[in-house]
Amino acid sequence: MRKLLLLLLVLIASPAAAEDGHDLWLRYQPIKEPLRSSYAQYAASIVVDVRTPRLRAAADELQRGLGGLLGRPVLLSSDIRPGSIVVESGSLGETAALRLPLKELGSEGYRIRSTSIDGKHVTVIAANTDVGALYGAFALLRRIQTHEPLENINIAQRPDSPIRLLNHWDNLDRTVERGYAGFSLWDWQKLPQWRDPRYTDYARANASIGINGTVLTNVNANAQVLTPLYLKKVAALADTFRPWGIRVYLTARFSAPIEIGRLKTADPLDPKVRNWWRAKADEVYRYVPDFGGFLVKANSEGQPGPQEYGRTHADGANMLADALAPHGGTVIWRAFVYTSKTGEDRAKQAYDEFRPLDGKFRPNVMLQVKNGPIDFQPREPFHPLFGQMPKTPVVMEAQVTKEYLGFATHLAYLGTMWEEALRADTCTPRCGTPVARTIAGMAGVSNVGTDRNWTGSQFDQANWYAFGRLAWDHDLSAREVAQEWARMTWSNDPSVIAPIVGMMMRSRQAVVNYMTPLGLHHLMATGHHYGPGPWVDNLEREDWNPIYFHRADANGIGFDRTAIGSNAVAQYAAPVASCFADLKCVPDDYLLWFHHLPWDYRMRSGRQLWSELVGRYDLGVEQVREMRRTWRSLHGRVDDERFAEVDAFLRIQEQESQWWRDASIAYFQSVSRRPLPAGSRPPAHTLDWYKAVSFPYVPGH
Amino acid sequence: MRKLLLLLLVLIASPAAAEDGHDLWLRYQPIKEPLRSSYAQYAASIVVDVRTPRLRAAADELQRGLGGLLGRPVLLSSDIRPGSIVVESGSLGETAALRLPLKELGSEGYRIRSTSIDGKHVTVIAANTDVGALYGAFALLRRIQTHEPLENINIAQRPDSPIRLLNHWDNLDRTVERGYAGFSLWDWQKLPQWRDPRYTDYARANASIGINGTVLTNVNANAQVLTPLYLKKVAALADTFRPWGIRVYLTARFSAPIEIGRLKTADPLDPKVRNWWRAKADEVYRYVPDFGGFLVKANSEGQPGPQEYGRTHADGANMLADALAPHGGTVIWRAFVYTSKTGEDRAKQAYDEFRPLDGKFRPNVMLQVKNGPIDFQPREPFHPLFGQMPKTPVVMEAQVTKEYLGFATHLAYLGTMWEEALRADTCTPRCGTPVARTIAGMAGVSNVGTDRNWTGSQFDQANWYAFGRLAWDHDLSAREVAQEWARMTWSNDPSVIAPIVGMMMRSRQAVVNYMTPLGLHHLMATGHHYGPGPWVDNLEREDWNPIYFHRADANGIGFDRTAIGSNAVAQYAAPVASCFADLKCVPDDYLLWFHHLPWDYRMRSGRQLWSELVGRYDLGVEQVREMRRTWRSLHGRVDDERFAEVDAFLRIQEQESQWWRDASIAYFQSVSRRPLPAGSRPPAHTLDWYKAVSFPYVPGH
Repeated sequence: MRKLLLLLLVLIASPAAAEDGHDLWLRYQPIKEPLRSSYAQYAASIVVDVRTPRLRAAADELQRGLGGLLGRPVLLSSDIRPGSIVVESGSLGETAALRLPLKELGSEGYRIRSTSIDGKHVTVIAANTDVGALYGAFALLRRIQTHEPLENINIAQRPDSPIRLLNHWDNLDRTVERGYAGFSLWDWQKLPQWRDPRYTDYARANASIGINGTVLTNVNANAQVLTPLYLKKVAALADTFRPWGIRVYLTARFSAPIEIGRLKTADPLDPKVRNWWRAKADEVYRYVPDFGGFLVKANSEGQPGPQEYGRTHADGANMLADALAPHGGTVIWRAFVYTSKTGEDRAKQAYDEFRPLDGKFRPNVMLQVKNGPIDFQPREPFHPLFGQMPKTPVVMEAQVTKEYLGFATHLAYLGTMWEEALRADTCTPRCGTPVARTIAGMAGVSNVGTDRNWTGSQFDQANWYAFGRLAWDHDLSAREVAQEWARMTWSNDPSVIAPIVGMMMRSRQAVVNYMTPLGLHHLMATGHHYGPGPWVDNLEREDWNPIYFHRADANGIGFDRTAIGSNAVAQYAAPVASCFADLKCVPDDYLLWFHHLPWDYRMRSGRQLWSELVGRYDLGVEQVREMRRTWRSLHGRVDDERFAEVDAFLRIQEQESQWWRDASIAYFQSVSRRPLPAGSRPPAHTLDWYKAVSFPYVPGH
Repeated sequence: MRKLLLLLLVLIASPAAAEDGHDLWLRYQPIKEPLRSSYAQYAASIVVDVRTPRLRAAADELQRGLGGLLGRPVLLSSDIRPGSIVVESGSLGETAALRLPLKELGSEGYRIRSTSIDGKHVTVIAANTDVGALYGAFALLRRIQTHEPLENINIAQRPDSPIRLLNHWDNLDRTVERGYAGFSLWDWQKLPQWRDPRYTDYARANASIGINGTVLTNVNANAQVLTPLYLKKVAALADTFRPWGIRVYLTARFSAPIEIGRLKTADPLDPKVRNWWRAKADEVYRYVPDFGGFLVKANSEGQPGPQEYGRTHADGANMLADALAPHGGTVIWRAFVYTSKTGEDRAKQAYDEFRPLDGKFRPNVMLQVKNGPIDFQPREPFHPLFGQMPKTPVVMEAQVTKEYLGFATHLAYLGTMWEEALRADTCTPRCGTPVARTIAGMAGVSNVGTDRNWTGSQFDQANWYAFGRLAWDHDLSAREVAQEWARMTWSNDPSVIAPIVGMMMRSRQAVVNYMTPLGLHHLMATGHHYGPGPWVDNLEREDWNPIYFHRADANGIGFDRTAIGSNAVAQYAAPVASCFADLKCVPDDYLLWFHHLPWDYRMRSGRQLWSELVGRYDLGVEQVREMRRTWRSLHGRVDDERFAEVDAFLRIQEQESQWWRDASIAYFQSVSRRPLPAGSRPPAHTLDWYKAVSFPYVPGH
């Protein structure tokens, strides 16, 4: 027996908590020497008046962050000493004599400056408001987390837009529509008495990236949330979030006056209905004095709305706006509609519906427009409404949760997608006007849930992060954001950052390639959108079917949206429209979005369209393989726990990218009846096999 | 400004993980000196052959546990030294010369003995099997965790029953029927590729208390889990659990041959059906070679079953048993049925159905019988089938999740309930035969979910723990178990243990008092069972209505189950029956379960029944208040995080106990038309108010 025993001298690591990603980008792991000491000289103490909740929050976070990063407690003190961090809002105290320029910071900006007070070198975080100071505190921590220098700082930041929201598609039964990170964080049953500490961590994470509001409930709304039973619970969440600068919003179901108000109608011009909403708004504000307002999905995908009563979207929005106005609340009305019965191109319908309403909305109505005209596809051109509602504040809606990009197990960094949308030139009113300059806010459909890592995967945390950072600063580059996130989340080791950022930057294009290359769109399986379904042709509405969108037949493929087709291009400003309509100008990325082309169409690459299409699918799979190889090269350079999770997910992604590629090619080949290009392998199974694949219980559906 | 600043010198605690209960009773926090050193001398090294998965698991756990408890790594070594812990299964190695008596330990027992090998003092954990050794490792750790001495140990333990199962009522969409701890742990979408580390922690926790099997899916079954898509996922879970001695079981939907097998019938005597199940069993065992078997709910509450084809429960169970028998699998058939259309007392129907089938089942069929004859009420007499199926192995089904006891936020320790059931004297075949001696296993309806604390509350962990411990040793006292758990989970400080154990021991009776005192039962609100509903009289089946169970009218209250009533007492052995039927013998706890009595019936207390009833409700509320006071006295003696959670939940429990008391008294007073006894306060609201209370989205329903 003795000889059977293995000589194992296994040291137990000190019982640190397993790395599970729960700390997000706020890990605050100790910095290695000598760098740690170089930062410590700038963190001798924290001088802040903690008698307001948001400055208390700033102080707590600085203590938590600096304490972790520097490996020793950093004290709060009322005495300035050399190396103090002085946090103030309003500049009436220690920093008054500095006469810092604050006006330009607005109500949410901050300034961080290295300076002297009473001859002592200090770092000042100054702002006009407590929340500005809180954002400054997070910004200072971020500099340390990413190993940026602290000497001679003079930074001023203010957000590009005042509206920076998460939209939770969370139902009252805690399921999450299009949620791939478990279930809703909101434990309604135990609210209001029990406030899960995780609510605070959620608020901290949002505040750290500048998100200042959260819509708690699904746009496919449930009127029950407006009843006292739930408003009490909402108030408890609002109270928890408030110190972190987060306002709460709710979705308003348009038919709520009927469902919970015992009225016979929800007609927005009916005085009883208007009174009901006014009283309801008054009631909501009694529970939540700084309530943000209502987000509304109306007359869209079965949701009730004003059109049922012969009224317009403006009538509906204005009625709610009038109810909220006395309290300073906002109506955010979604432009995601496609109600036409006439067979009009679905891509055109939101513009057709809302463009004529510009100027007809109350001042406290905002229009929330998805980044593209269809529905959060892996790639879409920008929505034609951007820039074309000059009298209406427009919020860009981005989908952080990856409904159409492989759910939680496909690595797809969406910073590049949003950068693309924000930088798209609307040429409205003149060229050189990117989408970013036309918007008054950004709303991200949340990817946050009960999973321990919050977002369903380690890398999906980057999408939450990137959404917030881009909502704050629309001009940040996706690469900068990826680098920040990778440093804070994984490592400051350049040999780790570079491969991770490289993977991230290429990841979304990989998904486009293996799902919907060359401007194809909406080819996903029915309902849950998990996996390929380009053959689907049996859905009730014509414009729900993938065949509606790709229009492939023996001759060619693509949706003709030029003047000889649906003429959707005409919704864009002329220079944009003429480029999209012109085969010589339109980028390959949008080719089949705007054009129906023969299979033998000659691409810029020199290849025929059919070969190019197959080549893109092949490329997508190869790009995932490459991501896997890259990740595996990091083994031992990141913690084992998160390494294993990412590794397992990349394996799933590789398998599923192959499935997508094979199923799509099997289908398109059945239509094109063309041979595969040389070197391209036939699909593993028959088309019928792929069609027969079914999944009864896909999450988020 | 300077004078406005508060002088705050706040030290940050070292960045330890917040206490959230995730570690359950396996916390392994460092023991204080000098006790720590006294244990260290018994843990010089661990000598174990780690080449089998279960001994590897035992070694891992000993290293994890001892490393934490002793605050230093404990090495694995092949050399015995003074103070080594020597773990062996089979006693062929180091311990062979000791000639330890192992035969009596069976296949799961263990022996821990202080002894000498080669003149070196060591502690030996010996067993016939690897899993026995694993249980021994956990037992040794438990001794240290609870500060029991390690000198001169000589312990031998084997489980009282071979079947110790959790039953998960988990659906494939991850909702959990009667689940109050979030959602299902099984992340089906990411299985089999991604094995969440939490699966291992789940298995560890179960192994630590001797649970050796888990039924992954709801008894209201879904045939999809038997398709290859899911069997692959089940196999991954089984592989993860196997090193911890946990076998996987599934629920079998009786109509699966129709639903996933394309047959036209599920008749258990049809050869095609029998072949289909045989082939299906073969298939399941290809995925999971040590598959435990099928748990079946048939012809009960809408579930399909053999009676649809004119066959008996035995026909159905035997058909599945024949399919499993070649592989050593077991059919566990639930006795929870009440299909009679004749108006027979619901409490009698399971006995009526199954008693005549004793002797008609295959040897690999077990009958799973709930602890009481109705349905997991806060208190029920024991089920009359216990002891009366001598030819059939019977498994007691206990509900760990608190469907009828206030969900996660009511503190109710169920050890006392199960102790009461296990110790109940069946007088079968003779008096002095407690239920514990009539059973071949225990199955607990799991209270485990995705909540960070696993069970929805800190104290519900105790119910998971107690279930496992009592399933292993049916004679443990509820108090002993509570003490063990409190020591491992909260503190070894006597000033903490005593109040916590005191609360726990009184807690279930408090729930009985404020919900269903004196033998009342099934008075909960419809469907979700959250809150009171004694007035409910409108449900489709007569025996779903609370008024069916309490039978209160102007004259009296209670269900007459004596010979002049339903005669349910006759299902018990004569001495038991005659006591239950006799007002002088029947305990107050079962009074209204067996008797219908006038409101002015004189109780043992001297009070009239009406006054006694109201007094019990009042007492229940007061007992919760007392628990709150007790808990508050522990402030500062347990960690702040868990303290706050328990405190918040007790506040909810106090509010809801008041609601239960008030609503019940409002209702019963409307029936009895009697004045409240002196000193008893009228309900806060009218009966109509209580009737109008509704909750649209209660968890677990």
